[in-house]
Amino acid sequence: MTSVQMSALDEMVQQFLEHASSGDLVKVSFLISHSRHLLNESGKQGWTALMLAARNGHYDVVKALLSEGCNTALTNRSGQTAHDIAKFWGHKHIANLLANGGDGNLQVILPNTGATGHESYFSREYLDRLSDKRSDSEWLSAKLASPKTVFLLFYNLDPLVMSGPEELNNSHPKMKLCRLGRISVDELMKKSDTVVIFLGVEKEDHTLQSKEEDGLTAWFALNTQENPIDSLVPKDSNRFFLKGAMPGLFLFDEDEAGVIAQARSVLAWHSRYSFCPTCGGRTKVDEGGYKRTCLNEGCKSLHGIHNTSYPRVDPVVIMLVIHPDGNQCLLGRKKIFPPGMFSCLAGFVEPGETIENAVRREVLEESGVTVGPVQYVSCQPWPMPSSLMIGCLSVAVSTDINVDKNEIEEARWFTRQQVLDAIARSNQAVFTMPPRQAIAHYLVKHWIGINANL
Amino acid sequence: MTSVQMSALDEMVQQFLEHASSGDLVKVSFLISHSRHLLNESGKQGWTALMLAARNGHYDVVKALLSEGCNTALTNRSGQTAHDIAKFWGHKHIANLLANGGDGNLQVILPNTGATGHESYFSREYLDRLSDKRSDSEWLSAKLASPKTVFLLFYNLDPLVMSGPEELNNSHPKMKLCRLGRISVDELMKKSDTVVIFLGVEKEDHTLQSKEEDGLTAWFALNTQENPIDSLVPKDSNRFFLKGAMPGLFLFDEDEAGVIAQARSVLAWHSRYSFCPTCGGRTKVDEGGYKRTCLNEGCKSLHGIHNTSYPRVDPVVIMLVIHPDGNQCLLGRKKIFPPGMFSCLAGFVEPGETIENAVRREVLEESGVTVGPVQYVSCQPWPMPSSLMIGCLSVAVSTDINVDKNEIEEARWFTRQQVLDAIARSNQAVFTMPPRQAIAHYLVKHWIGINANL
Ligand SMILES: [Zn+2]
Ligand SMILES: [Zn+2]
Repeated sequence: MTSVQMSALDEMVQQFLEHASSGDLVKVSFLISHSRHLLNESGKQGWTALMLAARNGHYDVVKALLSEGCNTALTNRSGQTAHDIAKFWGHKHIANLLANGGDGNLQVILPNTGATGHESYFSREYLDRLSDKRSDSEWLSAKLASPKTVFLLFYNLDPLVMSGPEELNNSHPKMKLCRLGRISVDELMKKSDTVVIFLGVEKEDHTLQSKEEDGLTAWFALNTQENPIDSLVPKDSNRFFLKGAMPGLFLFDEDEAGVIAQARSVLAWHSRYSFCPTCGGRTKVDEGGYKRTCLNEGCKSLHGIHNTSYPRVDPVVIMLVIHPDGNQCLLGRKKIFPPGMFSCLAGFVEPGETIENAVRREVLEESGVTVGPVQYVSCQPWPMPSSLMIGCLSVAVSTDINVDKNEIEEARWFTRQQVLDAIARSNQAVFTMPPRQAIAHYLVKHWIGINANL
Repeated sequence: MTSVQMSALDEMVQQFLEHASSGDLVKVSFLISHSRHLLNESGKQGWTALMLAARNGHYDVVKALLSEGCNTALTNRSGQTAHDIAKFWGHKHIANLLANGGDGNLQVILPNTGATGHESYFSREYLDRLSDKRSDSEWLSAKLASPKTVFLLFYNLDPLVMSGPEELNNSHPKMKLCRLGRISVDELMKKSDTVVIFLGVEKEDHTLQSKEEDGLTAWFALNTQENPIDSLVPKDSNRFFLKGAMPGLFLFDEDEAGVIAQARSVLAWHSRYSFCPTCGGRTKVDEGGYKRTCLNEGCKSLHGIHNTSYPRVDPVVIMLVIHPDGNQCLLGRKKIFPPGMFSCLAGFVEPGETIENAVRREVLEESGVTVGPVQYVSCQPWPMPSSLMIGCLSVAVSTDINVDKNEIEEARWFTRQQVLDAIARSNQAVFTMPPRQAIAHYLVKHWIGINANL
């Protein structure tokens, strides 16, 4: 893309957002009908057209954007959805339209939806994975050599970071990923034990680009087993490896959290799956880091497609169990939790098991409580090392608690008031909640009907 | 459990079902309040109290059973839920109460639910997994030696079966698993390459049993790599190994399908994960077949808990994409499909990805269509080798199709009428549907609002 094209595109987005902001329905509709990709574009501070229209009370524009299927789940840099904004500024009719993240077409075409459009931490897709490029070794090589390419560095799965700006506001990120250029990682790329994976490209308007010079900014992640800090150029004393997964990985903004979720999950797979599980032989990295191929010619894994060659994702159910009276919920605590903290029960889905049956089995095993109905709410990638947390609400049909001490230390029914006190961190609080970045936090708020963002 | 206790229990169930059938609300309520386990018991032909009350139009009894949290997803031997039965017999008020599998408490405590209580093939939990017994080697040994224990046999993952009774009715199972006794598998148990896994116990009323003689009937599954048919005693010419996964594994009743889903997934993991992926060393089977432990003393996998030691479950998204006009759906076909068949698009969830984003990515990659809102509907274990199919509806925000020929052969928008014709297998049908055992079949029916069972 030339810089002239680029600025023309920028200008169109700018105009579109201004029309949405000022409530010019005709111009908004005209622009969308000609350039649908504008729908979810954002400008300053991550504000989309929907947010601007919601902010300024333009009901018709919000309605039009929804009917075009715009994404109501997007958040601005302050973490607010359009619904949050409408509510905050007192535009109740718009807030109702957007209620529960009310997904335009979803409400019409898919009634009865429990979907809330909630975006959990670790969920945002800042990059386009462009998975078809993983097998294009020429393209990958060109991107690996490009000075424009961004490299993230991990040492034993700990990311290289800088402290973010000190802010009083708790919701601002404390950490930033170091985005290294090719020259910084030259030495590391030569080492045989460095694993390199392709993450994707920064999202842009693909339609305007020619194939030869695609203008796309690629991202890669590297993991090393020896501390590489000394081999980095230029030296920078502000950079350091953020040790351990928790709570460090909660300290990034939503864009970077999503990148970390992808990078750390795949790198963790490489660090534990270097050998072929079928024959015990050595393997090599293929497809931009999304495959390991056995080097043993006679291996069964080379015939047909087997999951032994691909990264592993472990489905986990995490559930808020609601008392049959509808006014209490069941939370448990593990020994390793900080004192006073209670959270949702959780456990791995077993082979041959549905999500709903896994919820029932885990709750019964851990707490002795029998669960009836189960409802999916939202999910969250969890890169420690590579789980998919499937968040559900469920209703108990029995209430006696009988804790399996091997699994959890204690489980208790908490009333709505106790949960509200814990969320507000009031003096009356009898327990503390998991942090807002954990889906357990969202499940509790979702149950008591508090919007997660305000 | 003594036979006297057994028949007392049987009798109680019988009475309970009769009261439900005759609409005696007082006696039904009394029995539940004293023996909650009765709620989901079934009698002749798999009919539960809810089904009987629905059959005979006893609104109050249905309401009482729902408020107690009874399972509305259960089906009788004809594959009908209570809702199907109420609809069939014209009890509209009861059908409404049970609408969409209306889960008693769920409707009250969890409004806006999209849950349907649909039970997919491979989903039923005929056995209680009793996972806490997996580490109780004494208990496992006793069960392995018990003449009461049931053994299922697989040869290279193909189950040993007998043909079921020939029936004109298409919904009857064509195959039955061979349930072998200990004596039949004596020889096989001695061979070093036979893998033995514990599946669980038949569900009974645990409260009536003493710990010493728990009276539970345990089930195990064996997999061998050499054809074991000759070493089985007694010889039986009706038994054979059902070759290949498809369509053979669709030919069982729901109870056995659920057992196969569990057994085959875990056995498939053993067959491909014999070696430690972390160091390439040999491993041994632990915890009743739910763990493999590295035999290499220095291996990292022995410190802490790693997923390398546990069976793998691969989350897959499978989605019906609905046209923005709400009246068409997107289906695709792979080369390997039977001629004329179209099905839902599907793909593996990647590391660091949510269910909703995986749906959007896969649809875009395979068909070029952009998806907005996504709604979870139902899921299905898929033991080929060990996937969890996560079924979703989604709404497209673009309509042009651009197929990735590496993934699928063709994708098309089909109208409601075309889908109805295909479901009815009418002469006008322009395509054929996947079989009813596949969740894709259910997603399509769910979209057009047809109850899956009638
Ligand atoms: Zn191999
Ligand atoms: Zn090892």
